[in-house]
Amino acid sequence: MSDAPRRLGILLSGRGSNFLAIHHAIAEGRLPNVEIALVLANVAAASGLEAAIQLGLPTALQVSKGTPREDHDAAMIALLREAKVDWVVLAGYMRVLTPAFISAFPNRIVNIHPSLLPAFPGLHAQRQALDYGAKVAGCTVHLVDEAVDHGTIVLQRAVPVLDTDDEATLSARILAEEHLAYPQALARLTSGRYTIRGRQFRQA
Amino acid sequence: MSDAPRRLGILLSGRGSNFLAIHHAIAEGRLPNVEIALVLANVAAASGLEAAIQLGLPTALQVSKGTPREDHDAAMIALLREAKVDWVVLAGYMRVLTPAFISAFPNRIVNIHPSLLPAFPGLHAQRQALDYGAKVAGCTVHLVDEAVDHGTIVLQRAVPVLDTDDEATLSARILAEEHLAYPQALARLTSGRYTIRGRQFRQA
Repeated sequence: MSDAPRRLGILLSGRGSNFLAIHHAIAEGRLPNVEIALVLANVAAASGLEAAIQLGLPTALQVSKGTPREDHDAAMIALLREAKVDWVVLAGYMRVLTPAFISAFPNRIVNIHPSLLPAFPGLHAQRQALDYGAKVAGCTVHLVDEAVDHGTIVLQRAVPVLDTDDEATLSARILAEEHLAYPQALARLTSGRYTIRGRQFRQA
Repeated sequence: MSDAPRRLGILLSGRGSNFLAIHHAIAEGRLPNVEIALVLANVAAASGLEAAIQLGLPTALQVSKGTPREDHDAAMIALLREAKVDWVVLAGYMRVLTPAFISAFPNRIVNIHPSLLPAFPGLHAQRQALDYGAKVAGCTVHLVDEAVDHGTIVLQRAVPVLDTDDEATLSARILAEEHLAYPQALARLTSGRYTIRGRQFRQA
């Protein structure tokens, strides 16, 4: 593997708090030899896009509304390839990816989900955990495959669920762990020093 | 609620390491106002039964092999009622309970499962977690209802899954947490100071 910095393409639809956590981790040296090559939003009002512009990072906006999914993803793929990204990092990107997108970056798309998968996949994971009466919750960083919230797990971090929790307090506690987990998982991935056997991700 | 000690009926089929953890917790005062009223095995060779005899605890053996499930459970219910148990505690009891058994002790049967439910229900939970590539595992103490590994969750404890783990090392790490979780959960239950709303168990 060359010594050139690994290039991240970050996709977001909203405030992108995980994008900012990754940016801070790079700035603080916790995510060595990595740079953000592109912050790509599909919603003009995404405040994460505005934050990226303020930070002087390369940005692009590819509005998805009103465009067929396949056409939109083709445009996204072109932008990411033009930016020569090594890793596609989903940070609150609220669109299901097409198979064409996933196969354009095989085992190179990373997502974070606010539960300990395989528990509570899909939307409103924190609410699902509360409704189920779970006493431990958490977050999962995983590679993206064709099934929703299903790919190989890179890292998980657990948090307690408290008797006094509501969706907001539990989500905030999980989000704090997400901000630690995502840079940590990206450090493992971008180091290149890992193996995947079956579904088992291991540091090499 | 009266001040009389809460009486546990412990069901086991094997070594009953969780039974011994509960016994030690009572002896050390970590499970106050609780006593073991009966240790009940369905397998003559269960070493947990022998341990209970050595400890001078009340024991019974109701061999299940060769007996229709309904008849066996009826005999178990009779023994537990005779011993005036308040709580039925499953500690490695390797038989599915009949609906008649479950309705004989409504919301008074407790089980421990070696995963963070709802992830990895059923047999070989630790192997399931490893095969899935989970990075956090754990155990769950829950009330027993008609569905397998499904009732209201009282307590969960998490452990890391290490890159070097196999089924034996992960099971041992989870078991150590089980030995803490079960007495802790029984202390909550036998205190009587809790509420259950929907599936949400909360200390009152």
